[in-house]
Amino acid sequence: MKISALGEFPLIERIAQRLPPYRKDVRVGIGDDVAVLEVDDQTYQLATCDIQVEGAHFSRHSITPYQLGRKAAAINLSDIAAKGGTPEHFLVSLALPPDTEVSWVDALYDGLREEASRYDADIVGGNLSKTDGPIVVDVFLLGQVSQEEALLRSGARVGDVVLVTGCLGVSAAGLALVLQPDLGVESEEAEQLLAAHFTPTPRIWEGRAIASRRRATAMIDLSDGLSSDIGHICDESDVGVRLWAKRLPVSGATRRVAELTGRVDWALALQGGEDYELCFTAPPEVERELAAAVREATGTEVTSIGEVLPDEAGRWVQLPDGREIPLKPEGWDHFRVGA
Amino acid sequence: MKISALGEFPLIERIAQRLPPYRKDVRVGIGDDVAVLEVDDQTYQLATCDIQVEGAHFSRHSITPYQLGRKAAAINLSDIAAKGGTPEHFLVSLALPPDTEVSWVDALYDGLREEASRYDADIVGGNLSKTDGPIVVDVFLLGQVSQEEALLRSGARVGDVVLVTGCLGVSAAGLALVLQPDLGVESEEAEQLLAAHFTPTPRIWEGRAIASRRRATAMIDLSDGLSSDIGHICDESDVGVRLWAKRLPVSGATRRVAELTGRVDWALALQGGEDYELCFTAPPEVERELAAAVREATGTEVTSIGEVLPDEAGRWVQLPDGREIPLKPEGWDHFRVGA
Repeated sequence: MKISALGEFPLIERIAQRLPPYRKDVRVGIGDDVAVLEVDDQTYQLATCDIQVEGAHFSRHSITPYQLGRKAAAINLSDIAAKGGTPEHFLVSLALPPDTEVSWVDALYDGLREEASRYDADIVGGNLSKTDGPIVVDVFLLGQVSQEEALLRSGARVGDVVLVTGCLGVSAAGLALVLQPDLGVESEEAEQLLAAHFTPTPRIWEGRAIASRRRATAMIDLSDGLSSDIGHICDESDVGVRLWAKRLPVSGATRRVAELTGRVDWALALQGGEDYELCFTAPPEVERELAAAVREATGTEVTSIGEVLPDEAGRWVQLPDGREIPLKPEGWDHFRVGA
Repeated sequence: MKISALGEFPLIERIAQRLPPYRKDVRVGIGDDVAVLEVDDQTYQLATCDIQVEGAHFSRHSITPYQLGRKAAAINLSDIAAKGGTPEHFLVSLALPPDTEVSWVDALYDGLREEASRYDADIVGGNLSKTDGPIVVDVFLLGQVSQEEALLRSGARVGDVVLVTGCLGVSAAGLALVLQPDLGVESEEAEQLLAAHFTPTPRIWEGRAIASRRRATAMIDLSDGLSSDIGHICDESDVGVRLWAKRLPVSGATRRVAELTGRVDWALALQGGEDYELCFTAPPEVERELAAAVREATGTEVTSIGEVLPDEAGRWVQLPDGREIPLKPEGWDHFRVGA
């Protein structure tokens, strides 16, 4: 069987099952975006990597090397943010065609450095290789979080609310603009959307504000898309979920793109990937407290978008008209045909 | 300028110079194969990565996926060995064409797992992507070492001897056999050489035996080739060196390949890459003690192959006839034309 027939998540599951049991210090291993490792009684080390492959994740013709550097760093930072952690050390692996311009590499590193510096993290090593194929930028990031504050995917409880930082569907709207630059979106809004797509903001400070209150129960970052990523919390916490379509936070600019491309705005928010917002769960009585903490620390809004159900109740989206449809992961699968 | 004109090490130097100063906890950063990070007063965390790109590092037609998995893990383990460290946690990034067979991925992971298990390390995460180009296997490895025992490239002192574990040129002889299978080497020897090339043995236990004695002064693993790698110790320690060609340890099988291919055996040992032996320096009075410690712990022989000179004395190879020639790095440079 080919991996395109099996699909990305079943392949990860298959790999995990073939590995021997972990040593005691591995709190979360393969299957999560971040490995969570016990350093001592108080601290978890966090380790994550994200590979960006030309042709699969980016095109050299639409993203600048500076933007690519920022994005490659940001998506790793976002994984650390999802655990409530603090980023510390980057390693960067590059596979480059020999005819790559030195100035291209300079600009890539300028972007990596800019993004790392914003969160006081250092680029401490890496690896260079030539390739006859597409450019590969593989970023590895170490971070840490206290065990008391760490948020995993596995802690959501029935009755919790589902909350999200910022707006959803913005990156997908940005991508739509890249593919159809003449959509007719006004320039200030277009800039906003393109920035969200090319240089997403990892929610490190928001993650810290949420985690340090110690009241949230589970967290994940939205990389593949809400409809897919919320499923990981359900899987790991053994719960179901109901998302409220009309509560999904959508910006005016995203709504414009949805209208101009004949799409439904909440569907864009539900299925669009690469927003890198944080989605977390918490008991309803702390919703206001957490939203206020995030707003005070960062200015970012937090919106409640659903509720955690018992596992046997299933996973649902309540449409704006009140009807309910099954929640299906419509996010990104790397190996599926057509992906 | 293109990176092929600049070359690999000048490119790394250029990248390093564009980065801001490190935070205090970075003991060794970019430029070394391993980042050395202060966890607390006693311990260094070690972090390394090595990318394997199809067409640049391996051919799917000559290496099996099981061998590739073992090798990809081993070359990272070797970097940890070079610091005297203990490996702990692997992350694995893969870029795979969608038509890759699931059984190929299974076998790759069998190899990774086999090699990790030998040294009691866990594979705790990673990343999968599709690619339209060559297969990429990028392995990250975390390890640790006590600060008292850690060996860096920067500690060699004038008057030290240069020592090496095992035999040199074996992997290069194995590669010669891959390229010319009908050389006429007898099968048992051929198997030895091919195993050294396809599934090198990282010298973790040898590294621990050397480091735990706390008498060696600097160490590196031989990945690019002795003539190139010893230069890193000279650069970082501000010393010169004289290597004795006739003392370079060469196995009978390697000597046979050298004869059959019309090459000089000590040149193969000096310039051949991918042996993953450890090269270290120590005061002459502890040479016997260290060699005995390594032999007792692992059965591996240690050979003295040169002496550390003042920086201004330069870097030399003393030929078997007593003449001296300048030591030039003839190892691997990824981006040079023809590399």
